[in-house]
Amino acid sequence: MGNDISKVVIKRLPRYLRVLELFMEREVERVSSKELAIKLGSTASQVRQDFNCFGDFGQHGYGYKVKDLYAKIKEILGLNKKYSCILVGAGNIGQAIINYSKFSNIGFDIEAIFDINPKLVGVSFRGIEVCDVENLNDYIQKNDIDIAILCVPEIQTLQTYEILKNKVRGIWNFATVDLNPTDYTSVENVHLNDGLFTLVYFINNRN
Amino acid sequence: MGNDISKVVIKRLPRYLRVLELFMEREVERVSSKELAIKLGSTASQVRQDFNCFGDFGQHGYGYKVKDLYAKIKEILGLNKKYSCILVGAGNIGQAIINYSKFSNIGFDIEAIFDINPKLVGVSFRGIEVCDVENLNDYIQKNDIDIAILCVPEIQTLQTYEILKNKVRGIWNFATVDLNPTDYTSVENVHLNDGLFTLVYFINNRN
Repeated sequence: MGNDISKVVIKRLPRYLRVLELFMEREVERVSSKELAIKLGSTASQVRQDFNCFGDFGQHGYGYKVKDLYAKIKEILGLNKKYSCILVGAGNIGQAIINYSKFSNIGFDIEAIFDINPKLVGVSFRGIEVCDVENLNDYIQKNDIDIAILCVPEIQTLQTYEILKNKVRGIWNFATVDLNPTDYTSVENVHLNDGLFTLVYFINNRN
Repeated sequence: MGNDISKVVIKRLPRYLRVLELFMEREVERVSSKELAIKLGSTASQVRQDFNCFGDFGQHGYGYKVKDLYAKIKEILGLNKKYSCILVGAGNIGQAIINYSKFSNIGFDIEAIFDINPKLVGVSFRGIEVCDVENLNDYIQKNDIDIAILCVPEIQTLQTYEILKNKVRGIWNFATVDLNPTDYTSVENVHLNDGLFTLVYFINNRN
């Protein structure tokens, strides 16, 4: 139960980071839990509860120092370190992910790209040449890879997972088949449609 | 406050659907709140609380009929209806979204695609020809569009939003700039990196 609660709290931390970035852009120095709550569509007591899980880092009546809170949450998430990443599957979604965000700026270095498609092998994205997926097993044996970004079609998902699991520390899984974590390998299954489904609810139930 | 709570519950409903689909695949007829909770990494009381928000649709001691619960949640979300959609921005992420899921099978019909790139205009994806984004305003004036899937680069996000807002009922926003809802237009801002950040936490904090 303790783990479940903190999992929910952890999943909220990236949202806190985004809200704090907005305050930092506006050069706000301190925020109250109430101000944070308003931006998050949450409540002040929820915000305080969340932060209490990690020890209290606000001062009662004074709120939180924006920059300190931001740094603290990054540290909790582990975003103050660098992570070696590989991309498996360089189709549309894979290419989109590489281009989506400046990963290397935020500590995620994509070191190799793999694909099964001979037309993609040898092509470069962001300066990284696509390798034949046949070399994947060999590569992750020889290199210490933190995260595999998995963007292969459904039919290739399980066989790729068999190669990756227990060799990389985490799989960010964009394939439409959910994968289970192992003792060594954490998994984040992406469910894009979830957002579409909640959007539909809000379309039909305007406040 | 009431709205905040239900928003959180709503965001959990797509996950319930996914879990119920797994039970349906295994031809399970009834599930208890506890069985649902285990699959969701939640608690039985949380599950019961969530469902109580919409009226009680379980029988105490008998659990929930899987198919009925599934149908009920789809109905709550509004997934028992069809939605007319357009895609704006047919680059990598846009193409990935079109290919990601059989949208039309689940009630989302992509009726038109728009892009600013002359090389893409006239090209067809899933049988739909890409139109010049210059025609976007005209198109959404003449056609009743429920949802715009927005996959344009950051620099084009705000001007495209100005065209779409108050004309489409919802924007599923993959652009890296958060957009605000209006009285008429709901917005779901997609934050892909959130999943990566929580993955990093779980890599660093294995149970």
